[in-house]
Formats: sequence, structure tokens, C-alpha cells
Amino acid sequence: MLRASLLAIALLLSPPAAYAAQASVDWTGPWNLAARFAGGSSAAVMTLTRGEGGAVTGTSGPLDEVGTWPLSVSGREEGGRLVLTLSRGSLAVGALTLRPGKDGLAGEGTLYGVSMTVTGARDPGRRPPKVHDFAPTTFQTRYSPDAPPVLHIAPGDTIRTTTLDNEGRGADLTWRGMPGNTLTGPFYVDGAMPGDTLVIRFDRVALNRDTAKMASGRLSARAVQAGHVQTPRAGWDSTWALDRERNVGRPVVGGKLSAFALPLKPMIGSIGVAPPGAQALTAGDLGFHGGNLDYSRLGAGATLYLPVFRAGALLSFGDGHALQGDGEITGQGLETSLDVSLTVELIKGRSLGQPWSEDPEFVMVSGVDNTLDEALKMATSGLARWLKERYGLDDSEIAAVMGASVVYDIAEVVDPRPHVVARLSKTVLAMLPAKGPSAP
Amino acid sequence: MLRASLLAIALLLSPPAAYAAQASVDWTGPWNLAARFAGGSSAAVMTLTRGEGGAVTGTSGPLDEVGTWPLSVSGREEGGRLVLTLSRGSLAVGALTLRPGKDGLAGEGTLYGVSMTVTGARDPGRRPPKVHDFAPTTFQTRYSPDAPPVLHIAPGDTIRTTTLDNEGRGADLTWRGMPGNTLTGPFYVDGAMPGDTLVIRFDRVALNRDTAKMASGRLSARAVQAGHVQTPRAGWDSTWALDRERNVGRPVVGGKLSAFALPLKPMIGSIGVAPPGAQALTAGDLGFHGGNLDYSRLGAGATLYLPVFRAGALLSFGDGHALQGDGEITGQGLETSLDVSLTVELIKGRSLGQPWSEDPEFVMVSGVDNTLDEALKMATSGLARWLKERYGLDDSEIAAVMGASVVYDIAEVVDPRPHVVARLSKTVLAMLPAKGPSAP
Amino acid sequence: MLRASLLAIALLLSPPAAYAAQASVDWTGPWNLAARFAGGSSAAVMTLTRGEGGAVTGTSGPLDEVGTWPLSVSGREEGGRLVLTLSRGSLAVGALTLRPGKDGLAGEGTLYGVSMTVTGARDPGRRPPKVHDFAPTTFQTRYSPDAPPVLHIAPGDTIRTTTLDNEGRGADLTWRGMPGNTLTGPFYVDGAMPGDTLVIRFDRVALNRDTAKMASGRLSARAVQAGHVQTPRAGWDSTWALDRERNVGRPVVGGKLSAFALPLKPMIGSIGVAPPGAQALTAGDLGFHGGNLDYSRLGAGATLYLPVFRAGALLSFGDGHALQGDGEITGQGLETSLDVSLTVELIKGRSLGQPWSEDPEFVMVSGVDNTLDEALKMATSGLARWLKERYGLDDSEIAAVMGASVVYDIAEVVDPRPHVVARLSKTVLAMLPAKGPSAP
Amino acid sequence: MLRASLLAIALLLSPPAAYAAQASVDWTGPWNLAARFAGGSSAAVMTLTRGEGGAVTGTSGPLDEVGTWPLSVSGREEGGRLVLTLSRGSLAVGALTLRPGKDGLAGEGTLYGVSMTVTGARDPGRRPPKVHDFAPTTFQTRYSPDAPPVLHIAPGDTIRTTTLDNEGRGADLTWRGMPGNTLTGPFYVDGAMPGDTLVIRFDRVALNRDTAKMASGRLSARAVQAGHVQTPRAGWDSTWALDRERNVGRPVVGGKLSAFALPLKPMIGSIGVAPPGAQALTAGDLGFHGGNLDYSRLGAGATLYLPVFRAGALLSFGDGHALQGDGEITGQGLETSLDVSLTVELIKGRSLGQPWSEDPEFVMVSGVDNTLDEALKMATSGLARWLKERYGLDDSEIAAVMGASVVYDIAEVVDPRPHVVARLSKTVLAMLPAKGPSAP
Repeated sequence: MLRASLLAIALLLSPPAAYAAQASVDWTGPWNLAARFAGGSSAAVMTLTRGEGGAVTGTSGPLDEVGTWPLSVSGREEGGRLVLTLSRGSLAVGALTLRPGKDGLAGEGTLYGVSMTVTGARDPGRRPPKVHDFAPTTFQTRYSPDAPPVLHIAPGDTIRTTTLDNEGRGADLTWRGMPGNTLTGPFYVDGAMPGDTLVIRFDRVALNRDTAKMASGRLSARAVQAGHVQTPRAGWDSTWALDRERNVGRPVVGGKLSAFALPLKPMIGSIGVAPPGAQALTAGDLGFHGGNLDYSRLGAGATLYLPVFRAGALLSFGDGHALQGDGEITGQGLETSLDVSLTVELIKGRSLGQPWSEDPEFVMVSGVDNTLDEALKMATSGLARWLKERYGLDDSEIAAVMGASVVYDIAEVVDPRPHVVARLSKTVLAMLPAKGPSAP
Repeated sequence: MLRASLLAIALLLSPPAAYAAQASVDWTGPWNLAARFAGGSSAAVMTLTRGEGGAVTGTSGPLDEVGTWPLSVSGREEGGRLVLTLSRGSLAVGALTLRPGKDGLAGEGTLYGVSMTVTGARDPGRRPPKVHDFAPTTFQTRYSPDAPPVLHIAPGDTIRTTTLDNEGRGADLTWRGMPGNTLTGPFYVDGAMPGDTLVIRFDRVALNRDTAKMASGRLSARAVQAGHVQTPRAGWDSTWALDRERNVGRPVVGGKLSAFALPLKPMIGSIGVAPPGAQALTAGDLGFHGGNLDYSRLGAGATLYLPVFRAGALLSFGDGHALQGDGEITGQGLETSLDVSLTVELIKGRSLGQPWSEDPEFVMVSGVDNTLDEALKMATSGLARWLKERYGLDDSEIAAVMGASVVYDIAEVVDPRPHVVARLSKTVLAMLPAKGPSAP
Repeated sequence: MLRASLLAIALLLSPPAAYAAQASVDWTGPWNLAARFAGGSSAAVMTLTRGEGGAVTGTSGPLDEVGTWPLSVSGREEGGRLVLTLSRGSLAVGALTLRPGKDGLAGEGTLYGVSMTVTGARDPGRRPPKVHDFAPTTFQTRYSPDAPPVLHIAPGDTIRTTTLDNEGRGADLTWRGMPGNTLTGPFYVDGAMPGDTLVIRFDRVALNRDTAKMASGRLSARAVQAGHVQTPRAGWDSTWALDRERNVGRPVVGGKLSAFALPLKPMIGSIGVAPPGAQALTAGDLGFHGGNLDYSRLGAGATLYLPVFRAGALLSFGDGHALQGDGEITGQGLETSLDVSLTVELIKGRSLGQPWSEDPEFVMVSGVDNTLDEALKMATSGLARWLKERYGLDDSEIAAVMGASVVYDIAEVVDPRPHVVARLSKTVLAMLPAKGPSAP
Repeated sequence: MLRASLLAIALLLSPPAAYAAQASVDWTGPWNLAARFAGGSSAAVMTLTRGEGGAVTGTSGPLDEVGTWPLSVSGREEGGRLVLTLSRGSLAVGALTLRPGKDGLAGEGTLYGVSMTVTGARDPGRRPPKVHDFAPTTFQTRYSPDAPPVLHIAPGDTIRTTTLDNEGRGADLTWRGMPGNTLTGPFYVDGAMPGDTLVIRFDRVALNRDTAKMASGRLSARAVQAGHVQTPRAGWDSTWALDRERNVGRPVVGGKLSAFALPLKPMIGSIGVAPPGAQALTAGDLGFHGGNLDYSRLGAGATLYLPVFRAGALLSFGDGHALQGDGEITGQGLETSLDVSLTVELIKGRSLGQPWSEDPEFVMVSGVDNTLDEALKMATSGLARWLKERYGLDDSEIAAVMGASVVYDIAEVVDPRPHVVARLSKTVLAMLPAKGPSAP
């Protein structure tokens, strides 16, 4: 048995104080594996099972850099070590030797001919939630797998912090970060692994200054026809005064817009995790990882669910809007800094594979793709899967429910990819018999 | 002077009773011109002005079959006739001789080498409105410039009639028309000419039977991703029971949908005029002429504005839905027959060039184009022009208003072209200083 | 037996000379059925089979106006008549009574509650081919199901005629037809029925004058980015001199283009049949029926295959180009009039459902849809089906052949829908073992 | 004068051997500036000019992380240092102090409130070209701004190396890199700065093994219609035998494809530099930086021009294809490893902003965007600008030349973004009077 062997090795290799801990290593079950190799890193949950006569079998998420192929695991216990072969389908693509390590397991091997070292840790489980009052000093303009975390948090924790405006200015209007939807973060969520869902509850999304800007003075070329000629006013003042007491914003430009005043509805424009494929994407981009979703319903009271693609998830957020029309058709909302309070949870091992959200009235599934048509398809397919998982409806029932009651929002059309939301009223969902515990 | 000459001709050619009428022919001003030529016809408003020394000048809408090029008019009075040259820019493309005729003017000529006969009539003006209780006996499955009108009506008149369901069945579920969004109409609106706007007020849009069908049992391929596999239930009953008393619809299929019941919101799915370019399009198609708009807000209380492309406009409608979700993503709403009451008005000589509508809450501009992205651009550009015409805002003001408050609806995605609506709340519009009388 | 009964009726109703003919009416087999009803008409092949004890069974193409649903036929011989029920799936949707008639069968009935009269004729079969030297006097600007034919021709016949330029001017530069890709036709092909394929061999496509125009002086908004600013030259002369002897065209504008001269490659820009769904579409539009395909390989030596949607097919053509670049990105080719000679054949009862063509080097399948992406998919799917039908390849073999050797052309992007062609070299096809007789 | 001051400082601060070098520091003119700040880095050419009375003015490319805004520079010489203000338009956004440094200049400052250190070096100029025989040991699966260079090269140098196949296997079929269009590189090109153009001449692109794979056994969902059902053959062998002697490839599957053999045309599928915006993109992605262009003409004899976005350009390449059909519609070409020889040049300070290429026959401009329609627009606009820069044509002349002679290729449709190429024959270009020296 490995446990005995490990004990033996521990006796040989470790100082006495480590004995008790290491003797308890049972290698079966799921491990949060982290791999490092020349020029990169990866992480995946590897689940090991004891077979007959010292055999080891198991499965693992992808460990190659861009996360292409899940793996199967087979091997043996040999002298306190696990000597494993990694396969893709029937094809052996790597080898791994594991032994007890600081966090649980450690080892090395090769994958696709590339040398790697790995560590394995157990899921840290749930700790008593904490509230972090976090005053940011560095900011990001990318969702990057390689950005150093500004803080480690645990599921259940709350982050109380501030975000800069889209150009990097804070509540006092001074610059503190580089322009480009400047992000607070990334926050490393302990225990978050690829395949999980990160849950972000928007407890508070509040204005912290008296002005915003919607700067372009014209409609975006992505929102008007090719022949639609615009003559923006020279010297146009794009500032809006934010009356936080009355919760009303109005453009300072006056004139024909003197009486034009809209209720404020603060929202977070860009919020996401490290993207899939080890990509680093700008804070103005969006996709499976969330990012620059620019969806006007993502304000206080909303809860956002994001797929995790990277160990720790690496949550960042910024680009607050005091309010935003559909489509963000000038290229901007009412851009401003924010005070935010977000509570983070983790759903282990399950993911819709795309962002979705809910608020008291609706469940909302996001589609982000190259065109509005493809984004709508992604949102629709995602909502259909969401319904199937939770209510066990068949495809004809899903068609009846969605065909008669789906609502689409066009969240934005001016970023690198458009964002369409398919939403269902919770009144409608309440008419369906729940299948069981909710699934992401 | 022509008036004198015409009198002389009238004396020669007409019986005495006609003298007074014909003597009053003053050729200046606008004429509703109708042209006939081998294989086709056209119509346009021609406006004539008296120049110096018997000269005639003027302008005309396009008189070629597909309506490509507006024309300028020049010529002379000669012996009681108008001898005119038709030009496109500086290029002479036709000749026309006009004289007094039954409706006002008559004549003949050539355009682009094609012989044509023309008649010209004055705008009939406004008559006391009538209510037409119209029981249809023939139906259309196309919006065609060539379909014979079922009824002539005048601006201000109300049509009370019925529509069949999408397959041609009436209130008693028997077939009365061919399938394909079977249309009641076309109604010829006296005085309607290309360049006008037809206004259709939806006074009543009411269910007249107890069932509807949303037939496909699956989501349309236009609404789901390529890899989204569906297994529709064999023998799926697509019938919905319509409880007209409680205003609630529910699928009869029961099972997990036993408690699924939605408020009914009857709407007209397909309503339009004869399309531009002398096209005949199916009742399932949509475009500048309206047609299969499938927009869930086009129910009782809404008013629809359509550009006129053909003399008489040729209004038709059908494809009632008891309710419809956004996008019509199963390919159908709750398809049913309807009792409808529509009041028609005409705005002369002005047109937004695309369908738009309003109801008590919103002004809504329709975009119909090859993709959702292009449809959104058409809707946005149309709404921007609508705002400019009515409120005299400059482009930066328009960007501020729309950027902060526009709402988009995805009306449908399953027909030959998608339909996106850009709408503004009337609360928002009330904050803008009106420029003057409203314009279409 | 009907034959006996028909004979009896014939004896009662017909003059003696007709006996022999009518006595030969055998109602079994395929009939070219034409239906007329209020406001429209339709046509379909109905194939009847004799069942047990006087029973009649059969199938029919759609007879509703827009051609939505194929029909099944059942009934009986009764006193020399066929009394038939028309069904859509298991649902009875019409009734028809047929008897011997002038062309073979005649009768009346109802379909979807609509009264209709029908005639049935046998396929006329093949007659000795004729050459028609046709001097057109009327022209079309639409592909319309309702346009009166200018000439009846038979499969195998050759049409020698001329086409006007896109604005309606002939070889002598005078106007003879209305602008809008003015078409010669329509030609009624005897025996052509929905479901057939019309084959058009381009024997001769020759210039007949010394000038062409490529008029816009700028690139189309459909071909350049939104931010691509163009300043077209004022007074730009868009004329090209066509040197027919040297087969070279050059812009007359001179200057920096003094040495710019290109080989001429005359082609027919717009060629098609009456569209599906009883639509009338402008000569500038394109689709399943062909139309404004604007494909530079459709010149002399090419053969075009078009699906037939309407009795007689109703072939029209025009919009000649002396040459055209890919995409037709100025909105025009070198627009000119042409002398053409086309030989027409008919493939009965088989159709790819979309235009395709061939020349000595390639087989080319056309995709026309709302976007280039969808057009490419239609072309690819069409070519895959074409390969499967002719060579019996399985889907993996098709993927290997096409994946390694397909070539795409972007024929045009400036018309209402873009046109992509997927082509395979005949050298490649010669490497595949033919399955048997070629199929359209 | 700074030069004098610098000399004084040098005397104070440096050992004697450094005097001569440092004394020669003239701060006017262009500097290759590299900035480092918390979490990131940037680079830009800053050009400084001496004003009146010790004033310094200048311009700089963007120095923020994602490269959004170019800067203007103003300040003064103060005691041997340059004390500079950085502005964006009229807005001061940073401050910089520069002094003589190891490479020329060194300093520190803040930009948008973020502290940074900078170094400035002169362009290294041209050195005698070298040939690098480079045997790669590490590989990339991303185009990343942060990947450590495998080799520094200079403009004029030639790299002779190998590329792995798309899955990371080499000439001997063993794995050496992780899958995902495994890249050789990145190569750091000394002196390459954002705004330059990197020129890559494909001297040799040669097969180095006898097999390739085109693996999917089906056409991609991005290339066929939604309703196009495929049944790939179970156990399909996707291997192709590459006969390097006869330059012919054939699928080993045999059967109906026994005679199917195509000429090989080896090409590099993925080649690019570090992307704009400090993005890290997968080797399967493509864009302004090149990347997975999958264009069949990028083989031996071609020259590729790529915009530089990052100091050193960071050139990588891989994903060799023995041949590829248009569109790469199975998702793969004939995937194989390659021997390649590439010669690199640099064009300073000029860039088309998008990839373009040439070979003996054509100049080819690449468009990569969200759809084929947008990609075509980018290619067309890019080619129009290319023509304008080189030949000084006006927009109407450009429209005449391109409208009559452009050819489009659909390079690929299966990657995250499609790739369209607009090309012009060099025969056509030879008819145009050159404006002067060629420009990128």
C-alpha cells in the first residue's frame, strides 16, 4: 500500500516533525495538480483510483499549456511512488512519477516530450468567510494567466474595494492606473481549479464620485450603417454630473439636453477570470472568461457565474458605468470609478462553460462570439443546457418554454466581440418542477 | 396659358356637362402619376411648376419599373398639351406628352426607350372616415405589387376583419387559404403614393378561437449553435390551449409543463405593403415594406408606420400569434387566427424609409437586414434620423441620448432576414424639447 | 379501367377525329399539372399509380402558391373520372376531380379551402433542336413568375440574341429597356417543371460595342472598412474602351492609368429562372434561381445548371460584363451589351437545389446567402452533395477530397446577397471512380 | 547644451574608459525606449528635438501597457538630465527624467500614475548578415509578449531550423512540444520596435518526413450548412503518404481514393509576432500579428510582411502543411513537420498595420476579422492603402484598378477568425507608374 510505503520513504527522507503529516497521504481521490515546464504552467484536477494489485487508474483534465486534451492515467505504486502513464485516448503522451510532497504530492515527468515538475494538493475546503477591505495599489489592463495575484481569498470571502474608471482614474479623478478598462485584481481564489464555477455576488456597486464621462460624442461605426454620416460637435463636453443623492445623471452640456436626466444604475462593465488557452486578453475584450461584458444588469443584487480556467481563477474587475444603454453604442457607458463589495463562492467540478448570471427577476445566460447572430446562438444553447441540467426537460419541452418566454438583451456591440444575453423570468422558472439541487 | 388652352380643348372634345370640371384643370402642383408599359407599371408623384414664357419645370419620383432613379422634368405648354422631357441628372431619358384626362391628366411617352401611357390625378384628400366590416374570401401568401385589391379604403378608415392562422385556417379551424402566413388583403388606400407613410393603428387584436400551435418541437437551427444536438419528442403535441377569459395559454402536452401557463399577448406577425422594386415577396419574408416582422409589441395599442412603395400602398396582414417569445426561436409563435380592427392614416410625402412603430410607452424603429449586426445598424441609424427630424438634435446630442437610453429587442431571427428593434422610452423623449410638428 | 371509361366519355363528348388520341389516355405515370386559383397559379408533377380494385395512389409536388408542402394522392376511378384526395402527411388538405382534357387531363377541386382548376399534360419529350434568332423588343427588370414569355423553346434549342447593358442600352448605346440589369426574356422552356434542372450552355458570349462603363469611381461600402475614407474624383470618366480586335480594355481616363489595360473576358452577369415561392425578384438580386450571380467564369464555354421552380422555367439573362474583378467591388463590372448564343437542355426530375456550373477546367457550385460565411457553407454543402451523388463517396472521403483540393471564389459582395463559389478541378475529379451516370 | 553636461556627468560618474562613448551621447533624434512597471512592460520609439533655450520637444509611441495612446513630449535639459512631461493631446499624463545610461539613456518616471523605469537605445543599424543553424529545444503554443526569446537575430540574418507538426511531433514522429500548432521561437530581432515592419523571406519550406495527417474525417461545422448531416467513417485513417521524390501526396486509406494524389505544396500555417495590446494568443489564433494565417501561398518563394508590436518583434512559426485546400475546411491541412529557412529584414518606422505578402506573381494583403465579410473589407482596405502609398493613385483610380483586377482567396474559415486575402497580379502592378521607393 502506498500509505505504508510513503511512511517508509518519509522515515528515510524527512525530519521527524513531518512524519505524522506525510503518513496520512492517501493518494486516492482528486488532487489539484499544478504543472510547471519551460515557458509555462498548467493545472488540472487529477483523480486517482486504486485498482487491483497495486494498479493505479485515473483521469485528469488537460495539462498541456493551452488545455486541449483531457488525459487518462494508469500506472502502479512502486516503492512509495506512483509511476504513471498519461494517455490521450489510446495514445500514451506522457509519464509522471509522484511522491509525497509539501502540499500532498510532488513529482516530475514529461508530457508530449516536455519535461515538467508537478505538485498536488487537496482541495482546501471551506474556511470561515472573511471580509477583505482591500485598497489596491497596482492595476491590470489585461486578463492574464501570468499576472501576480494581489490577494489570496477563500470561497465565502467578501472583497470590499474600489475600481478605477476606464482610463485609470479614481474617485478623486487622479490617475492611478494605465488606461484600458483598468482592472482591480487579480484575486486568487484558493482551491479554484479549471472545471469549477466561480460565483460572484454583487453585494454593493456604488458610485464614489460626482462625474462620469461618455466620451465619443458620436455613435460607434459598429452601431450605425456605413452611409450614416455623423458630424460630432467640436468641443463636445462628454461629462455627466452624477447626483448621487437623487440617483440621477445628466450631461453637463446643457442646451437641448438641459432637461435630459436619467436614473443611475451603477454596474461593473468588465469582470472576469484568467481566459482559457493560457491567453492574456485585454480588459476591453470578452469571452468565455467574462471580461468586458458591459451588461447593464450586472449591478448590485446580481450574481455572476464564471467558468474557471486557471488555478486560483484570478478574478479581476473594473470599468464601472454609472449607467449604460443597450449595446454601449457610443463605445462607452457613463464611465466612472466605483466602490464595490463582492462575495465569492466556488462550485466545484461543474461549469456551464460560459458566463451566466441571475438577479431577483431573471436567470441570464451570456453568449459572446464573433457576431450578434453567433452570440445569440451561444446564449440560446447555453440557456437550453442550463434548463436541461436543472429541470430535466426534454428538448421539445425546452423549445416550448424558451420559444414562448425567452427575452434577449443586446448587452454590447462595440467591443471586439458582441454580447447577447438570453434570459428567462424567475416567474416562468417557478412553473417548472425542479429536478433537484441546482447545477451551474 | 394652359388653363385657357385646356378650356379650348375641353370645348372641342367634351360633352357640355364636363366643361366646368375640365376647365378647372390647373396643371401646376403635385400629381399622382400612374404609368403602364409592356409587362409592368409604376407610379410617382410629379410636381410641375410654371416657368417663364410657357416653360414647364418639375420633379418626379422614379417611373422605371424597379424605381431606381428620380427624374427632373422640363418642357413647354404647346397647344393645350404639356410636352415634357424627363431627365436623370443631366441626361435626357424620356419624353412625355400630357393633356386633360378623366382623372385630371392623361398622356403617353417613352422612358428609357419603353413606350408608356400615363394618367395623373390629384390627391383625393380626406373624406369622412368609414368603418369597413370586411369578411375576406380570398387570401394572399405574397406581398405583391400585382395582387388585385380586395377593397379600396381611404385615410381615416377602419377595417374590421379577421386573419387566418399561418397555415390558412380560420376561427373554426377549417382551411380557407393556402399555407404560408396567409394574408388578408391587399387593401388599396386611396391617395397613397410612393414616398408617403402609411399609418396603421392597431385598435383591436383579439383571439377568436381556443387553440394555437407552436409546431416545431425544437429550437430553430438559426437560434442554436452548430453542435447543439436536439432530440425532439416523437409525437409531440404542439397545441396550446388559449383560455381567453383568464387571458392565459398553456401547452396541452402536460407532464413537466402542467403548471406552465403564460399571459396571452395577441399580436399580428406579418403586416406590410407592396415591397419596393416591384418585388413580390412571400408573406414569410420581411424588409423595408414590413412583412413578417414578428415583433411581440405589435398588438392592440400599437401604431405601425410603413413606407409606401406602390400606388395604393396595398396593405395586407396575417400570421397572428397569441403570444411570442423574443426571436421566435422555434420558428413560430403561438399561431392562431385573429379578429382585428385597424385604422389607417396617411402621411403625405414623408417617410423614414423603414418600418417604425409606437405604443403608449415607446417609440420603436425596425431594422431588417441580412444579419443581426446589420439589422441593429439599420434600426440605430433609423432611430437617429427619427430623433434628428423631430427634435433637431445634433449628432453628439443624439449619441448622448441614444447611448444612454436606447433599448434593443431581437424581434425574430428565424425568417429570411432577422429583425432588430431600437426603442426609446416616451419618458426619455418627453425630456427633449420638440422641434415642431412630428415627422415620419 | 379508366382507359375504357375515358374512351366512353370521349365517344360522348368529342368529335370523331379526337377519338384515337383520347382513347390513348392512360392516367398512370407522371403528369405536368398546372393549377389556377384566385390570384395565382402553381405547377407540379403528379405521378399516379393504379392500385387494387380501381384505387388510385400517387404523389405530387406542392400545389400551394408558394410551394411549401408536397402532397400525397389517393382516390378512385369513378365513371371515367379520377376522384382524388390530396393529403399532406396524414392530413387531408384538398380534393381533385380529373377527367380527359385537351392536353391530357383537366379538372377542378379545392386545396386548403381554395378553389382551383387544373390541367395535366404529358412531358412533351424531345424534339429536333432548333436555333432561334431572337431579336428582343421587350425587356424585364425582374425575375417574375408572372412575366409573359417572349418565346417558347424546347430542350436542345439554341437562342441567338442580344442583351442590353445594365442600364438598358444596346449595342448602339440607345436605350431600349428600363435600367436595373435589364433582362432579355423570359423564355418558356416546354416541359420544364419544378424539380427539374435547366442546363444552359454558353456557346457564345461576345462583345458587340466598343465601350463599357464601370461607373461608381469608388469602392463599395460593402467592400471596405467603415473607417476607410474615399474621395472619388469629381467628373471621373468611368468609360472603358473595348478593343475587340486585341481583346483588351482600358479606362479612357488616362493619366496614371494610361498603361493600364486588361484582357477582356466577356461574361453574363445576371441569368436565372423564375424564383421559388412565386417570388418576383429584381434582376439585381440573386438566389436559388440564379439571377445576378456576377461570376466571372460564366462566359463562353461555361455551362450553368439552374433548379426549375415554375412551369417553363422562365429563363432570362442580361447584365453583360466585358470583364469583372472578384467581388464586383465597385458595384459594377465593365458594363456593356452583348451578343449571346445559349443552348438549353433539361434534366428531368433531378436538381441540386442551387445553381452550379462547369467549364473545361472546373466544376463550380454556387452558394448565395445572407453573408459570405453562410454563402460559403451553402457552396460547400452543395459541392459535397454533388460529389456524393456522382461518385458515391462517403463523408470522410468527401472531406479528404474537398479539404485538400477545394478552391473558393468570391464572385460578388455588392448585391443584396453575396455569392461564393466552391470549385474542384476536373483533374481532381478524374482521379475519382465514377459511380455511374452523372446527376445534377 | 546637454552634450557638454553629459560629458561633465560622465566625468564625474564613469571610469575613464567610458568617456569617449558617453561623451558622444546626443539625445536628439529617435530612441528605442523600453519601459518597465509593476506587472508589465512596453516599448516605443521616442523622437526628441532640441527647441529654443534648452527646451526639449518630441513625440513617442504609446508607453501604456496595451498601447492605446501616442504621446507628445516636452521639457527641458536640466543639469545633464532631460526632465520631460508626457502628454496625450493637451492632457499631461506622465513625467520622465532621462540621463545617460548603459545603452544610451536611462531614467524613471510615472505614466498615468504608474511608476516606471526606462532605458533608451539607438537603433543598432545593420550588421553583416549571419546564418543561424538553430536546433530548437523548447517550443511555444502561444504568441506571447512575455515568452523568453530562444535566439537574438539581426535584420538580414537567416534562420535555418525545423518546425514540429501541429501536435508537437518532429521529423521522427516523436513528441517534442505540446500540441496546439506548436511553434519554433520566439526569435528576438534586434532593433525591431513597434511601428516597424518585419519582413520574412521564405527561402526554403521543405518536407522532412514521409507522412502527414488531415485528421478530422469530416468537414468543419464552420464550412457546412446547419442541416448538412455527416457520418464520418469509423476508424478512418487520416494519414497521407508524402512522396517527396515525386512531390505527391495521397491518402493511405485507399479504396475509392486509391488514385487520388495531389501535388505537394509545403507551406507554413502559423507564423507571427507578439500581438498588439500585450495580448498572449494561442498559436491557433490569428490577427494583426499574423499567427495561424493558414494561407496556401505562404510557401517557398513568398515574402511575408508583419507589423511589429513589441520590442524585438518576437517571431515564431510552425504548423507546417504539406498542402492545404482553400479554407482549411476539415480544420486541418496535411499536417507535418518541416525544414525551413527564413531570412528576416526590418523596415523601420513604417507599417501597413496588417499582414501582407508577395511572391513572384502576386502582391497579397491579408484581412483577418470576425467574419468573412469583415475580413474581406480589411483585406480590400489594406490593399487600397498599399496601392495609394506606392503608386500615389487617387481613390477613383484605385477603384478602377482593384474593381477590374482584384482576386480574393479564402485562406481559412475554421480558426477563431476567418482570413481573406486580396491580391493583385504583378503584371497589373507593372502597368502602373511607380511613385517612388516602395513602402510597407
